[in-house]
Amino acid sequence: MLTLYDYLDSGNGYKCRLLLAQRGITYTYVECNIMQGETRTPQFLEKNPNGRIPALQIDDGPVLAESNAILCWLADGTDFWPSERLAKAQVLQWLFFEQYSHEPYVATPRFILRHLGRDHPRMAELPERLKKGRDALQVMESHLQKQDFFVSNRYTIADIALYAYTHRAHEADLDLTPYPAVRAWLTRVAAQPGHVKMLPGD
Amino acid sequence: MLTLYDYLDSGNGYKCRLLLAQRGITYTYVECNIMQGETRTPQFLEKNPNGRIPALQIDDGPVLAESNAILCWLADGTDFWPSERLAKAQVLQWLFFEQYSHEPYVATPRFILRHLGRDHPRMAELPERLKKGRDALQVMESHLQKQDFFVSNRYTIADIALYAYTHRAHEADLDLTPYPAVRAWLTRVAAQPGHVKMLPGD
Repeated sequence: MLTLYDYLDSGNGYKCRLLLAQRGITYTYVECNIMQGETRTPQFLEKNPNGRIPALQIDDGPVLAESNAILCWLADGTDFWPSERLAKAQVLQWLFFEQYSHEPYVATPRFILRHLGRDHPRMAELPERLKKGRDALQVMESHLQKQDFFVSNRYTIADIALYAYTHRAHEADLDLTPYPAVRAWLTRVAAQPGHVKMLPGD
Repeated sequence: MLTLYDYLDSGNGYKCRLLLAQRGITYTYVECNIMQGETRTPQFLEKNPNGRIPALQIDDGPVLAESNAILCWLADGTDFWPSERLAKAQVLQWLFFEQYSHEPYVATPRFILRHLGRDHPRMAELPERLKKGRDALQVMESHLQKQDFFVSNRYTIADIALYAYTHRAHEADLDLTPYPAVRAWLTRVAAQPGHVKMLPGD
């Protein structure tokens, strides 16, 4: 049995929940309130010394951290992560793009706005972060003008990883109107078999 | 034949050069001066729309971006990236850790100090970045106190990815004295067969 340590409002956690649902895998869900320091307790740091959710514990044994590594583990041997050498690496290329060039500039502004609030000093980070967020969306837009999905023209974990925070971009004050190919792709991803929404109220 | 678009002072590029050397693969090296905008020209953006080095062109065909995805492509099917499902994902866990929790806090301060200079306004970012850099080094230290290498107790691309900027930490004003296990691991990595240094003057 798998145990997912997660926080419901986390897009990184949602990546894992979405793939677990689409693979039809049952698991134990443990909510960790990151706003109350529950991922920095000694007990949690024993599971993930980097103090972050999501973390996936496998059969009461090893704990795997990093949302995109969890996606790879869950997708290994399935069509969600092609096994052909170049396609496999191209999926990883987009997963690293997501963590380095997208997440800090889409997810972090969303976090500041939703969890810290518009009076918080970290609001000063928003203009620069959102500029880079628009750069990331433009890279996605150019790519999706030429194909329906990120790799091999079919739905993979590259789409899952990029969908997670892109479909919440409005909560980061990012307007998707200038990115029609991204918006069409969001609709295609949401129409995949077994798709589940991120939050109960969605 | 492979073509590596790179910048000699880049640790991300060095990861690829190191593995190419250790695998004994010959390739064409194309230096792109990031300080003169050579990765933002229309010609380069056709190769990597995200405008970054390193980028690896495969037989005049597709171009793979993201240093850690290039490592995976180069290591696929070799002992540098174990094929066993959990170990494979654990390697990826450390590669994502490197890009999200280490590179922005070790490589970026180094870039500011070496390429922008101590009079640059971005120096204001250093205290917060270096604090998180020390957090990343502490996560590595705790892990390496229990094992010689990051995954499966043998040298893999997880070690290559983390070695690249950690062995330049002094150039980022990060003192490795408090991290003896990290320092011992740096020595072990540098002693691997086929190891090459990053810069000609090293």
